[in-house]
Amino acid sequence: MQNISNEMRKSYKTIAVVPTMGYLHEGHCSLIRLAKETADFCITTLFVNPTQFAPNEDFEKYPRDFERDFNLAKTNGSDFLFNPSVEEMYPSGFSSEIKIKGITEKFEGKFRPLHFNGVATVVAKLFNATLPDFAIFGQKDYQQTLVIKQLVKDFNFPVSIVVAPTIREHDGLAMSSRNVYLSTTDRNKATILYKALNNVKEAIKKGTRKKEEIDDILKDTLLSLPEIQIDYASSALADSLNEPDYFESGQKIVLLLACKLGKTRLIDNMVITID
Amino acid sequence: MQNISNEMRKSYKTIAVVPTMGYLHEGHCSLIRLAKETADFCITTLFVNPTQFAPNEDFEKYPRDFERDFNLAKTNGSDFLFNPSVEEMYPSGFSSEIKIKGITEKFEGKFRPLHFNGVATVVAKLFNATLPDFAIFGQKDYQQTLVIKQLVKDFNFPVSIVVAPTIREHDGLAMSSRNVYLSTTDRNKATILYKALNNVKEAIKKGTRKKEEIDDILKDTLLSLPEIQIDYASSALADSLNEPDYFESGQKIVLLLACKLGKTRLIDNMVITID
Repeated sequence: MQNISNEMRKSYKTIAVVPTMGYLHEGHCSLIRLAKETADFCITTLFVNPTQFAPNEDFEKYPRDFERDFNLAKTNGSDFLFNPSVEEMYPSGFSSEIKIKGITEKFEGKFRPLHFNGVATVVAKLFNATLPDFAIFGQKDYQQTLVIKQLVKDFNFPVSIVVAPTIREHDGLAMSSRNVYLSTTDRNKATILYKALNNVKEAIKKGTRKKEEIDDILKDTLLSLPEIQIDYASSALADSLNEPDYFESGQKIVLLLACKLGKTRLIDNMVITID
Repeated sequence: MQNISNEMRKSYKTIAVVPTMGYLHEGHCSLIRLAKETADFCITTLFVNPTQFAPNEDFEKYPRDFERDFNLAKTNGSDFLFNPSVEEMYPSGFSSEIKIKGITEKFEGKFRPLHFNGVATVVAKLFNATLPDFAIFGQKDYQQTLVIKQLVKDFNFPVSIVVAPTIREHDGLAMSSRNVYLSTTDRNKATILYKALNNVKEAIKKGTRKKEEIDDILKDTLLSLPEIQIDYASSALADSLNEPDYFESGQKIVLLLACKLGKTRLIDNMVITID
């Protein structure tokens, strides 16, 4: 992979990488198409990274379908699919980890304490394997995009990070490979996350500026489904994830949701610039 | 620096980097000359990295002389000198660290517990800043060369590591920027490290194979100077730093020394292949 990338770079061609864990949906496909608009070549990486799953999480049962992923990557314009094995990525004797403080410790980081170190480490490896000029990430994993930006800045990776909008089902549910876990009933109820985000959007339009009120709207909307389990439902400044008591005009904020419906954990977010 | 390196790579030119903390001596100069033999271009980096010094160590008083370093790098063939400031390398908000287990925990790692994480982190940054094909390190910091090799392997850096022999003063003292700290008396006594290494070399020629005996020769030689403080004086397998009770024919071993003369900490090592 490095040899291929090096040859492309020497031919003055630019490379965009789309890191994925496979089981591609229209969200990934939109990233691949954006990669091809952004650079001469697109490398899609397909690697279900064990180190970003906790022991109690769904690494083993994470959905996989190589044939389908291969075809989707190809038809959406990806030039290469980089699909290393766990043994290639973490051979015997592997002993390194990237730790990032601050941005990794809130929200997802509280509920998945080793998750972002696993993400940062594997993304550093994937960057060095594919040597891209651009890397395309979905806004769906909002906090992850901040962690990757911090990684790139702190380690001087010569990579520009592009964040692409979340792609949603017709009823607003954010696309996710994990949506296949949802029962039909839970799938219908899952639209509550997008509804909660939109309720805040409306409230902010009407003048709500107090963080506590915003967070209450998120929580109250979600809890209209009594069976939902909320990990977090919160607002923060979009760049730092700092949480002031009031948001001010001109500030860009992010609403961040993570909750469980049945056994399925769903996340969603919305970025809003206060008028 | 990245733009310059990228242009060189696109012109099918190879790059070797020589990471240094400056105050260059003939050891560094030999690395620069080797870099120019190895690659089309040599980038010497000059950065006294605060994160690899403990609070009680000599970061502040580490010797510095930019003019001299600039001229020595140039006259020995370096094409570029990359000399970032601490603020450029660790701007406000910097929050990342590379941690490497195993190889970092023994010998130097016991006495300088955060040292190798600082080294690994800054070397990753310097690799991304200079985008080299080769990186040249001196064998003088033997354990560091193993840590760097682990870093490159674990993170898939597209960089070949070249380890160059330790350069010594006429009386055998390993060249080091820290030798300027030695009083005249201590400077003369400092040859005891090389003497200890050579005593073991002779003993191994005569058939000594037991680790305990080898380590005793090292310690006994050093302690012929009653004022010396030994941090460690030990033998290990050269690739893994594992410490079996006996060494066997064909095995490559390393003798590792760290001790203090007055306030000056000196390290040295020797790699020996058992006949």
